[in-house]
Amino acid sequence: MASTAAVAWEAGKPLVMEEVEVAPPQAMEVRLKILFTSLCHTDVYFWEAKGQTPLFPRIFGHEAGGIVESVGEGVTDLKPGDHVLPVFTGECKECRHCKSEESNMCDLLRINTDRGVMLNDGKSRFSIRGQPIYHFVGTSTFSEYTVVHVGCVAKINPAAPLDKVCVLSCGISTGLGATLNVAKPKKGSSVAIFGLGAVGLAAAEGARIAGASRIIGVDLNSNRFDEAKKFGVTEFVNPKDHNKPVQEVIAEMTNGGVDRSVECTGSVNAMISAFECVHDGWGVAVLVGVPNKDDSFKTHPMNVLNERTLKGTFFGNYKPRSDLPSVVEKYMNKELELEKFITHEVPFSEINKAFEYMLSGAGLRCIIRMGA
Amino acid sequence: MASTAAVAWEAGKPLVMEEVEVAPPQAMEVRLKILFTSLCHTDVYFWEAKGQTPLFPRIFGHEAGGIVESVGEGVTDLKPGDHVLPVFTGECKECRHCKSEESNMCDLLRINTDRGVMLNDGKSRFSIRGQPIYHFVGTSTFSEYTVVHVGCVAKINPAAPLDKVCVLSCGISTGLGATLNVAKPKKGSSVAIFGLGAVGLAAAEGARIAGASRIIGVDLNSNRFDEAKKFGVTEFVNPKDHNKPVQEVIAEMTNGGVDRSVECTGSVNAMISAFECVHDGWGVAVLVGVPNKDDSFKTHPMNVLNERTLKGTFFGNYKPRSDLPSVVEKYMNKELELEKFITHEVPFSEINKAFEYMLSGAGLRCIIRMGA
Repeated sequence: MASTAAVAWEAGKPLVMEEVEVAPPQAMEVRLKILFTSLCHTDVYFWEAKGQTPLFPRIFGHEAGGIVESVGEGVTDLKPGDHVLPVFTGECKECRHCKSEESNMCDLLRINTDRGVMLNDGKSRFSIRGQPIYHFVGTSTFSEYTVVHVGCVAKINPAAPLDKVCVLSCGISTGLGATLNVAKPKKGSSVAIFGLGAVGLAAAEGARIAGASRIIGVDLNSNRFDEAKKFGVTEFVNPKDHNKPVQEVIAEMTNGGVDRSVECTGSVNAMISAFECVHDGWGVAVLVGVPNKDDSFKTHPMNVLNERTLKGTFFGNYKPRSDLPSVVEKYMNKELELEKFITHEVPFSEINKAFEYMLSGAGLRCIIRMGA
Repeated sequence: MASTAAVAWEAGKPLVMEEVEVAPPQAMEVRLKILFTSLCHTDVYFWEAKGQTPLFPRIFGHEAGGIVESVGEGVTDLKPGDHVLPVFTGECKECRHCKSEESNMCDLLRINTDRGVMLNDGKSRFSIRGQPIYHFVGTSTFSEYTVVHVGCVAKINPAAPLDKVCVLSCGISTGLGATLNVAKPKKGSSVAIFGLGAVGLAAAEGARIAGASRIIGVDLNSNRFDEAKKFGVTEFVNPKDHNKPVQEVIAEMTNGGVDRSVECTGSVNAMISAFECVHDGWGVAVLVGVPNKDDSFKTHPMNVLNERTLKGTFFGNYKPRSDLPSVVEKYMNKELELEKFITHEVPFSEINKAFEYMLSGAGLRCIIRMGA
């Protein structure tokens, strides 16, 4: 079928609206009509293609909400009309990771940013006059229609507004789950959040939901501090304002360290600070931000031996199909506030504006309204 | 009162049996009659005094079992005749650590190897002709009578044989608790133990008790492998036998990594291997061994982000007064086997032999029988 899509023909060049052919879903695949998508740093990172092998032409996009249009052979738990969130990582429900209570790193459908084709036949479902256009992380939601593996699709409450819950496909769930599923702060505890972008603010939102009494936001950009108050952040530290390591500043503020920390920047120095700023005896630090290829996490082993815990998380430890529906319910019952993450909205035809907002650091999430 | 004690007059020189005067217990102190003590590496380390500030003359000893002889003012939960284990670290039951479910690192009574005096008055309770003899980690069990803070004394089942359970005062509980309280392997899981000395074998014993199906022992000394089988170790890796990092060897043996690892050597390279050999998604590595002053734990942050957990523990996360009695019960109900840790026994008068056994690497624990 024909679909309007925003195609990235070259690294770093504006996307071009094109009419693409979208093939029918094959075995264990579904074809989705995307209604809303949003832009995440990961799209921009691979679109810029600095440091990775470039793969173009490609259709980016992985935070989205849509409706099932048709299903391929063997798909039994989704049917046309179902409301869904496509997800950049999957859940096959068969592998050791899917069967483990602790992991969401599915062996079959774990994120693969290098693959631009579908698993079933190693080919793309997108083409323009016979030329294949590559997929991105199995979702490619910058297209009115897209084909996704059934293991990467979460079926959600059809009453949920897709223009809001679409942001749960990636960054917001990542930050929220890092706090709620991994750091698990107790009511009344103290939590430090490193990085006050969308993921960090979602981590703060998790701390607010968990009932933390002190939420300390750490960011090099003090302009973010006002916005962060809306997400429950109670205190702020800009490491540039201090002539000692930020972990020492936080230890002084908290009589020895915070109960939990969540690192959402990807800077290895912030990771080290996030670990060293938690209290001995019980402190837990959770790493979320993705580091550079050659980074090295370094700390004195006594910092570990003094009963601190270091954990990492991927997509907030949520299993996409099993767990995302309950995150949508958290929004529906007003426990989780999503509106405050949505700062911009553009019609699909103006998708390049969303890239400009993100590159200039304006706002948190820009919703892209399809079919407009 | 007069007491026979083995006094270390100088670093690294044989202990000398002396008659020392032991003062009565002051407020919140108890005076114990020690019946059995054993020798731990920590005694030897501070007796050698390489790298620390030497503090002599001193009475070493901290793994022991005894009976309360008298109690000082304010002591209400111990009385003369109680069977007890003195412990090198304490539990005041009042501080934030003692009140936390997660920590055993008491603010008041946490191990302090530099202090040679009692907290109450900053003085020693031992003297020879008026000359004070320093305490060691608040226990100084190489004396028939010693004075200990009540917070460092665990009251145990009087039916427990003190010549066996005395080893629970330090190393055995440290390794056992690292596995049972911190690594928490599930039944049927795989566990790697780095270092097959007494602490590592106690960690293996914990894995055996937890029902681990594969217990992989790692040690540079292959002579230890036979002995380790008694402790449930099922497979062995000597890093010297391989021309690739031991974490890669273990990953190949276990289809991606072990479920849990416990590091009991204190070598920073072993710590890094122990962390990197656990499976992504759910692996947990626990550090027990004490590192050198200038060590740096280094790993690529992606090893953390791929949902591995790094934790440290001190004394197996046991709170001495609250938890040790139940460890003694594990021995009494035959769940925990202590006999296999006890490889030598000497009368008190031959305590220097125990040092020789340890320095030559012979055996695991040497019980020193007091009053003989």
